[in-house]
Amino acid sequence: MTRYKAIIAYDGTNFAGFQSQTNQRTVQEEIEKVLTKLNSFEPVILQGSGRTDSGVHAFGQVIHFDLKGQARDEERLRFGLDTQTPADIAVKQVKIVADDWHARYHKHEKIYEYYLENAVTRTPFTRNTKAYFRYPLDFTLMQEALSQLTGTHDFTGFTASGSSVDDKVRSIYQAEITQLDPENFKFIFRGNGFLYKQVRNMVGTVIKIGNGRMPVSQITAILNSKNRELAGPTAAPEGLYLKKVIYDDKDN
Amino acid sequence: MTRYKAIIAYDGTNFAGFQSQTNQRTVQEEIEKVLTKLNSFEPVILQGSGRTDSGVHAFGQVIHFDLKGQARDEERLRFGLDTQTPADIAVKQVKIVADDWHARYHKHEKIYEYYLENAVTRTPFTRNTKAYFRYPLDFTLMQEALSQLTGTHDFTGFTASGSSVDDKVRSIYQAEITQLDPENFKFIFRGNGFLYKQVRNMVGTVIKIGNGRMPVSQITAILNSKNRELAGPTAAPEGLYLKKVIYDDKDN
Repeated sequence: MTRYKAIIAYDGTNFAGFQSQTNQRTVQEEIEKVLTKLNSFEPVILQGSGRTDSGVHAFGQVIHFDLKGQARDEERLRFGLDTQTPADIAVKQVKIVADDWHARYHKHEKIYEYYLENAVTRTPFTRNTKAYFRYPLDFTLMQEALSQLTGTHDFTGFTASGSSVDDKVRSIYQAEITQLDPENFKFIFRGNGFLYKQVRNMVGTVIKIGNGRMPVSQITAILNSKNRELAGPTAAPEGLYLKKVIYDDKDN
Repeated sequence: MTRYKAIIAYDGTNFAGFQSQTNQRTVQEEIEKVLTKLNSFEPVILQGSGRTDSGVHAFGQVIHFDLKGQARDEERLRFGLDTQTPADIAVKQVKIVADDWHARYHKHEKIYEYYLENAVTRTPFTRNTKAYFRYPLDFTLMQEALSQLTGTHDFTGFTASGSSVDDKVRSIYQAEITQLDPENFKFIFRGNGFLYKQVRNMVGTVIKIGNGRMPVSQITAILNSKNRELAGPTAAPEGLYLKKVIYDDKDN
């Protein structure tokens, strides 16, 4: 048995999210189908660094899996996986790792990016790969709102109700917005972990603030009150990308 | 009756091309459905500057059409068309024009762009909006090949056989390639008109030259011999965009 770590990219448009679900097309299931073939048809279960929701994309999701036998050539295995998975999944890197290496439980940080088109007309080419907001946005207000999100906070007010995780304290090291061109913004979030729908709820709130329909001070009010009702709407999934998972070891 | 000119963008992925065809989803048909509604359900037939093939995109296709009654507000009409057409069509501009203005017969130049990803792994996000070539490409060889295409030539060797147009002499004013980043190229072609599949046949030939499997001198041989057999394969439709149609009048 050999354990492999892989970095994968996927277009989430036609997936019911990353994680396997009965009767739904998922990223996990599509990759496991190919892995099982490469494992002499003995079932392979992979582990991801975490889930992504339906419609959410990844530039650099990290997974690990075990295949029978001795270590295979990394690039040959990558190429085999990349060409046999569907066109909306790309396998960017494969590395042999220690037998106890774990994509989820090994300590890591995550970087998410959120792409937002802010124009009179929505570009048809990126309707599945960028979110869209038609109305005016104030860049400075959005910057101020984002700066209130950095640090270690209880993010209960920014997660979906009914979340099963007990400890909702997380640290955000970076929360920034860049104007890519007059009609496009990119948000970047780096932290030690994110709760269910946390990034999309933060973005939806920041957009509402940028549009002048909520004060910047609302961010602190949401954090202090832990009240989801005070936050803005959940931003659309098509703008969100899991950009990178950064592990503590030298393996990155 | 008032005549309108419109600039439209579309993602060609899910269309059987621009022009109406029986039992196929086309850009023309989708827009005419909306126009007919706006025309008190009296059928409207639009005219495009030309066709684009299945899978080919447009940033700036130009159409014209007539609607009953007095001149409508241009921005209101644009907004109505943009919101009522499907998400893979965007209506970027509407202008009132003279009753005899014609998108196809009025003298114009066209600009086409072709986007090519040249990387070990194909990006899943642009699989429908960029072409992909896995093997090495020599930028200088491609530049030299493109420079041989500019000027006034009989482009019979670069059109699909069975084309119904008699006069195959066209002028190309610009044929250039830019390296956008280490893994992405953009081709630009500006000319007074292009034959059926001409741009894709030129790109397919230039790629073959860039990959070292055909000499630069082959361009002149194809032009002189008018022999399609000497040219490279037709490049994939998903990389091609009708970028702009430039009319002779001040109306642009």
